[in-house]
Amino acid sequence: MMFNHKKYEKKYFLPPKLTYDWVKKETLESAPIWCSVDLRDGNQALPIPMNLEEKLEMFQLLVEIGFKEIEIAFPAASDTEFRLLRTLIDHHMIPDDVTIMVITQAREHIIRRTFEAIKGVPKAIVHLYNSTSEAQRRQVFKKTKDEIKQIAIDGAILVKELAEKTNSDIYFQYSPESFPGTEVDYALDICNSVLDIWKPTPTHKAIINIPTTVEYSMPHIFASQIEYIHKNLSYRDSVTLSVHPHNDRGSGVSDAEFGVLAGAERVEGTLFGIGERTGNVDLITLAMNIYSQGYDPKLNFNNLEAIRKKYEKLTRITVPERQPYSGEMVFTAFSGSHQDAISKGMKYRKENKVDKWDVPYIPVDPVDLGRNYQTDVIRINSQSGKGGIGYILETNYGIQLPYKMNEAMGYEAKKVSDQTSRELSVEEIYHVFKEQYVDYHPHFQLLDYQFHKGEKQEVTLTLLRDDQQIEIQGTGTGSLDAISNALKAYFHLEYVLEVYEQNSLGKDSQAKACAQIGISYQGNMHWGAGIDKDIIEATVKALVVAVNKLEVWM
Amino acid sequence: MMFNHKKYEKKYFLPPKLTYDWVKKETLESAPIWCSVDLRDGNQALPIPMNLEEKLEMFQLLVEIGFKEIEIAFPAASDTEFRLLRTLIDHHMIPDDVTIMVITQAREHIIRRTFEAIKGVPKAIVHLYNSTSEAQRRQVFKKTKDEIKQIAIDGAILVKELAEKTNSDIYFQYSPESFPGTEVDYALDICNSVLDIWKPTPTHKAIINIPTTVEYSMPHIFASQIEYIHKNLSYRDSVTLSVHPHNDRGSGVSDAEFGVLAGAERVEGTLFGIGERTGNVDLITLAMNIYSQGYDPKLNFNNLEAIRKKYEKLTRITVPERQPYSGEMVFTAFSGSHQDAISKGMKYRKENKVDKWDVPYIPVDPVDLGRNYQTDVIRINSQSGKGGIGYILETNYGIQLPYKMNEAMGYEAKKVSDQTSRELSVEEIYHVFKEQYVDYHPHFQLLDYQFHKGEKQEVTLTLLRDDQQIEIQGTGTGSLDAISNALKAYFHLEYVLEVYEQNSLGKDSQAKACAQIGISYQGNMHWGAGIDKDIIEATVKALVVAVNKLEVWM
Repeated sequence: MMFNHKKYEKKYFLPPKLTYDWVKKETLESAPIWCSVDLRDGNQALPIPMNLEEKLEMFQLLVEIGFKEIEIAFPAASDTEFRLLRTLIDHHMIPDDVTIMVITQAREHIIRRTFEAIKGVPKAIVHLYNSTSEAQRRQVFKKTKDEIKQIAIDGAILVKELAEKTNSDIYFQYSPESFPGTEVDYALDICNSVLDIWKPTPTHKAIINIPTTVEYSMPHIFASQIEYIHKNLSYRDSVTLSVHPHNDRGSGVSDAEFGVLAGAERVEGTLFGIGERTGNVDLITLAMNIYSQGYDPKLNFNNLEAIRKKYEKLTRITVPERQPYSGEMVFTAFSGSHQDAISKGMKYRKENKVDKWDVPYIPVDPVDLGRNYQTDVIRINSQSGKGGIGYILETNYGIQLPYKMNEAMGYEAKKVSDQTSRELSVEEIYHVFKEQYVDYHPHFQLLDYQFHKGEKQEVTLTLLRDDQQIEIQGTGTGSLDAISNALKAYFHLEYVLEVYEQNSLGKDSQAKACAQIGISYQGNMHWGAGIDKDIIEATVKALVVAVNKLEVWM
Repeated sequence: MMFNHKKYEKKYFLPPKLTYDWVKKETLESAPIWCSVDLRDGNQALPIPMNLEEKLEMFQLLVEIGFKEIEIAFPAASDTEFRLLRTLIDHHMIPDDVTIMVITQAREHIIRRTFEAIKGVPKAIVHLYNSTSEAQRRQVFKKTKDEIKQIAIDGAILVKELAEKTNSDIYFQYSPESFPGTEVDYALDICNSVLDIWKPTPTHKAIINIPTTVEYSMPHIFASQIEYIHKNLSYRDSVTLSVHPHNDRGSGVSDAEFGVLAGAERVEGTLFGIGERTGNVDLITLAMNIYSQGYDPKLNFNNLEAIRKKYEKLTRITVPERQPYSGEMVFTAFSGSHQDAISKGMKYRKENKVDKWDVPYIPVDPVDLGRNYQTDVIRINSQSGKGGIGYILETNYGIQLPYKMNEAMGYEAKKVSDQTSRELSVEEIYHVFKEQYVDYHPHFQLLDYQFHKGEKQEVTLTLLRDDQQIEIQGTGTGSLDAISNALKAYFHLEYVLEVYEQNSLGKDSQAKACAQIGISYQGNMHWGAGIDKDIIEATVKALVVAVNKLEVWM
């Protein structure tokens, strides 16, 4: 019995009193304080950690995005991180409005090494932690609750003492690591004991950071834990309450958002959710969730596509295709009905000059994040339909097909995708269109035409049929009618010209036009298109294709 | 201003009455009805959709995992899906306890085509849907609320009529598609109107399925929406309430779990969360969240590693490295402190024969999911520490190092990883160990040794030094003491033998042993190891390495 759920039990603790004030709040209406832990917690999860140069580039990227708190390092854990700190400090590379953070276990030699690493920094957060969970006390440290609490207190005392000896402006942060497996009131007791040492003030706050080191409970439980801590924390107006979610149960985003609803004011996480095991919470998702409801996220992802590429280069990770907001595929629709709705929504938006973004199936405007409508939104495979194909032709080539012609073109493209069992590129779709509707003339080709002004419109057409040049004449009420009559008479045809549409493929008077002609014959529609600078020529070409499509030639 | 949050506003609707009974429930204590939509909704998101053979293999895989409800197809959307249905039905490939589902828009020709596709099936769910959101009514359908509702009602009538004409046991399901943008009471009204047509009974229930087609709100809002529907649905005891979450805000897992707390009895989703845009909810995560708290998930992922490989082959997707439970990296720790805790936790577990799984940093036993402790849990790079390296040597080679020797070995391995800037494989770590502690004898080598029984233990050692064979003698209280005294006397050394440990590398009497020797000299420890079938020989070799490590040779 390898797959035996009885081997497990709940590993989390409920707070002594469960309250749910948080659940009555609807959503996050402002951004919390963001703290990036990409350089430490994120880096720690990389098979190949970043080197010094890569870390400096990452720091720069984080600053550009708008982070004001950045965890730089665990100076005792690696030489690279020590050197990173020295480089940033010695070369004055930390902007005035950015506070760096360094993390240290509550152990004397590590704390001392940490203060060596930040010597001379104008301002920094020293982040002290120790592991507090029942499982770690029993299995790893073999210490009592009081002994574990004393580790935190001793660390807090030393940190304070060393901070007072520096000329830097040092802020303190404490995390009860492995909180999800810790009794909530005990974790709170440790935090309050640490605060009793630090004695923070409203103008020089301390940070209490509650991590879901490993996610053990559903996020509403975490919310009520945070609410309990929020309500029972000492020096509350002098403390910034922070959360640091991981994602083992796939609920890191909700842990963070509910944590903030429950009283937290600050969130630690990483870009794209890189981090140990299932990752840290993805700060892009959190920020964009705020943005997409109309609130200022206080981080700028206008250039998310470029940020992703740079991040992938520096960390050697690949952002998953379906990572919210940033993944390659998150704006893409293959299915016919979605494509149809998107296509109509985009048209509605344009025609009605809609103020707020509300296109179906696209929660945020891809352009906001450095993506584009042409290649990212609608992509074509055998699941796709006319709406998508029409959209591709219109957004990439300016070609707007009549409804029924679009349907016919849809079937042609789907057929190719079905046969080849793969996605079609924009170019391939245009190629299908050209082949089927623009360059299709297996039975006869148009070589030339000449109009003669008479009582009615008169035309002479030069055709090529079976390698022979033919001259034929026709008359009609207008140019199109004259040409059509010439063809009908010569080939003894009886079709009806049902649809004639044309649109410009660009905005200036030099732009080409695309004409579409639909003719009906024995109950079936046949379509042709022509593209030319001259609208008459485009129209004639379209008609010639439509006539070539008739079943009479077989 | 491309990055402008003012372009957005909330797109969801609150229910007329907000209640929060769901929030007082702690967790899911039993599995909901699972419905896999891999073959339809999942497939729809693939750049290259599955072909007939691949779909048949996927169906088989889903059955093996334990799914009892499987959405097969949208027969009107593709020929392949139509043929898939016919193959499954005509070849009697659907097990008796599995119900297939087919989806159809509420449009006459599509409904009729759907019933053609399932002709002869013993039992099936016909899943009717239409889009109900404000945005789609206005932009796509240009219809009033009543007209949209009528589409659902007309569909429900036709579905019922066609079902009555078959000999199959047909169950009905209705989804108000684009629910997140739909007024909640209006969506409920449509559902109830559809139920009034179907008149389900407790023994032949209908399914009402609420999708987060696009995730617009936080998951606690969705929970209260579901709770409202749950409390106000007609024929409640004759309806299975279902949810179908997507993941645009990264909260699909919470939508599903809260939906169930709020009254839903069924969840639609896919394996690994494959699906349009940010994906459907990942049913593996949901099931394993239940499993890891000690409840039966009613799906078997004992072989998840093999399932992942098969799924990747059939769909041509790559499961993200950090996908909860199934990702390549989700059990891996690189960081020293995590490795140390895991290593101690694993040891504690073994020594204390712990019943329930509670190893720090590993929420579920990787072995349950077809992974292994040797290569998946602890991996070594420059962030790693002694705990991890000791763990690697112990789990892969049976070598247990003394605490301080483990620390020294940790530094040696880290140095290599730091210099090469990459992760070290298990073999490379063993190589470092061999090179540094087993095969290290730059100053002299042992060629042979002979013990002679006298009053005390006497030994003759044959050494190789500077290409010269040397014979030396010593006596002592035991074999080790005699050898040590011989070396000390000949080389004029004064070290103290502080640590001598040994452990068997296997379980039978033929297994090799590994001996470790630690000697102190002028306050520093020096280490050597020896591996041999004979424990005396292993010990002698270990001592020779340790003595070679002394600084006196330089």
